Amino acid sequence: MSASVLPFTNQEYERRLKKTRIAMETAGIDLLFLEDPSNMAWLTGYDGWSFYVHQGVLIFTDEDPIWWGRRQDANGAHRTVWMSDERVTFYPDHFVQSTERHPMQVLAELIRSKGYGAKRIGLELDNYYFSAKAYLTLQSELPDAAFVDATALVNWQRSVKSEEELVYIRKAARISEKIIDGALERAVPGMKKVDLVAEMYSDAIRGVEDAWGDYPAIVPLLPSGSDAAAPHLTWDGRELQSDAATFFEISGCYRRYHAPLCRTLYFGKPPEFMLEAEKALVEGLEAGLEVARAGNRACDIALALAAPLERAGIDRGARAGYPIGLSYPPDWGERTISIREGDETVLEPGMTFHFMPGLWMDDWGLEITESILIRENGAAETLCDRPRKLHIKD
Amino acid sequence: MSASVLPFTNQEYERRLKKTRIAMETAGIDLLFLEDPSNMAWLTGYDGWSFYVHQGVLIFTDEDPIWWGRRQDANGAHRTVWMSDERVTFYPDHFVQSTERHPMQVLAELIRSKGYGAKRIGLELDNYYFSAKAYLTLQSELPDAAFVDATALVNWQRSVKSEEELVYIRKAARISEKIIDGALERAVPGMKKVDLVAEMYSDAIRGVEDAWGDYPAIVPLLPSGSDAAAPHLTWDGRELQSDAATFFEISGCYRRYHAPLCRTLYFGKPPEFMLEAEKALVEGLEAGLEVARAGNRACDIALALAAPLERAGIDRGARAGYPIGLSYPPDWGERTISIREGDETVLEPGMTFHFMPGLWMDDWGLEITESILIRENGAAETLCDRPRKLHIKD
Repeated sequence: MSASVLPFTNQEYERRLKKTRIAMETAGIDLLFLEDPSNMAWLTGYDGWSFYVHQGVLIFTDEDPIWWGRRQDANGAHRTVWMSDERVTFYPDHFVQSTERHPMQVLAELIRSKGYGAKRIGLELDNYYFSAKAYLTLQSELPDAAFVDATALVNWQRSVKSEEELVYIRKAARISEKIIDGALERAVPGMKKVDLVAEMYSDAIRGVEDAWGDYPAIVPLLPSGSDAAAPHLTWDGRELQSDAATFFEISGCYRRYHAPLCRTLYFGKPPEFMLEAEKALVEGLEAGLEVARAGNRACDIALALAAPLERAGIDRGARAGYPIGLSYPPDWGERTISIREGDETVLEPGMTFHFMPGLWMDDWGLEITESILIRENGAAETLCDRPRKLHIKD
Repeated sequence: MSASVLPFTNQEYERRLKKTRIAMETAGIDLLFLEDPSNMAWLTGYDGWSFYVHQGVLIFTDEDPIWWGRRQDANGAHRTVWMSDERVTFYPDHFVQSTERHPMQVLAELIRSKGYGAKRIGLELDNYYFSAKAYLTLQSELPDAAFVDATALVNWQRSVKSEEELVYIRKAARISEKIIDGALERAVPGMKKVDLVAEMYSDAIRGVEDAWGDYPAIVPLLPSGSDAAAPHLTWDGRELQSDAATFFEISGCYRRYHAPLCRTLYFGKPPEFMLEAEKALVEGLEAGLEVARAGNRACDIALALAAPLERAGIDRGARAGYPIGLSYPPDWGERTISIREGDETVLEPGMTFHFMPGLWMDDWGLEITESILIRENGAAETLCDRPRKLHIKD
């Protein structure tokens, strides 16, 4: 039994596999092993919260991919991948988190049995889930193989989105708008932050009319006041306070596709420096959107953003965005292009980014961001349509 | 500025550090680098969703730990760790997900500058977040160092919980009860699963009177009918169906501490084989709890569980539990002991486990589980107090 309902057409999976095989050939890779759950899903459809144990897919140049994982998760693979049953293989449970044996011993045996024991094997060396020990075990079990660093090889193939993918990202964007609208509307001083987070999750998961909500790859981030200086603090049991800003960094998620959106809410009268920062930031966003065009480079967006910020005396010291799409925890970015000085990647139609110039200063923070799509012609399209400003409740 | 409100007393952090230093000495480790966010938090208090970039803590035998991470996350470290400001160090943002440079180059320089460039350095070789590339970069940057595999070295120190930790786990257990109660009460055939998940998140995050809810390390799992054969499928947009079982695998989370709990709900009249499985499973759980005593071994629980299941003709083919406590995604287990045949770890008072004998058969599933505490005397205490049975709604 292969999956009865796949999220994408067979043509779409064929397109992805073909792109990947061309990249393998260019890199001189005979066999590619992928442990990144996003890459696994993108190529095979596999979907499940099983990435806390070793698993992966093997990509061949001349036969269908093989899903490989823990025995109990093979049932999930049968239900979600497009390949036929015999392309799903597994290792016995006593290899799971064992102090005596390693699942990569089983994978190595599979690789040998397929005739690739002395071939060039691509591995995602800098990726969550593929550990140092996994690499060392493969190295020791396959002494005749040549290992090639294939970090982000598939991630790069994901940069330009297909029409089918864009349908999903747009649905995620509708959910993002709903989450932000709800947060801005409901938040009042004295409200417990957990009550607000609960409502934000409710919006995220119920979704919108034609799109149910999946879990986003990052939990909602909404630090307040001085804590908003720290971009990655999560919530706590305290109440929302007057005379403080809270930013909302969230993403709707539809079939694992994301469209992050951040807005900031101030209770009371914002200090002058924050209003000035808002003005410079919005100006920078608009300047960045204007140059976010096919043919320009990723760094052009960063440079356009930086000019008004510099004039306002603000040094962000951080990149201003990253590609988005299909993702699993812990990151909704694709880990390829960075919107920052020095990244000369040429923008192509169909690329999607979170244009994310968060300001995290010593004791305050401000986030106003956009998920964007690079178009054939003209400036970037913002995937969400919400006022680009600091929201204020007196 | 160090954190104004720490989740634990200074004595508790001292206890943990002391235990870890003894383990380092036993393993012949001069300097320990930890990238596991759970180990980072357990030893320093650090809390933030920043583990999608390289970061970690350095543990010395004779000076306070150093938090090391991305520049923008240093603000979060200042606000959450017990160490003083100068023990928080960072790398510049252009190292983040760069194709040209690696954060471990900066860490290596820090290690050299502290005088450990030719010492024995412990690394978590088989851990999420510490990648193969991180290891290879350290190896190349520190050619005179000797690297020691310190996988799970700190995780093992976490096995026996302190009184302070047990307070948190018991709070998490109250939240777990609330989530399960709500799910069992609200679920009816025809209800959209996302509406149910939204309510489950609401219960999880609002928490109970004296405990707000944090995000659990695993999202709620609640596959139905044939899909319940696959333990790690997440939800979708479909409606709950009659004549099918849905299991709820969830955990409340308080200050990152977990107490997972699973129950199963059947709409209609369950088939005879499922009632027989329920009977054997409950019998096995009771037999397991009875031998889950200080002085017995982890495998004794697995063997006690297996006997009634075997009599009912059920071969699970999977381990039956793992230690629980402080955790970050993607796993709420501690990845040390496994409740399974062959694991002869002796049980000690204060150890906590998710006793998790899920049944995932070819086209159905049944989960009835308990989070347990090993006591000084007598059988294990179940941390949640809910009927141990298959729930049925006619």
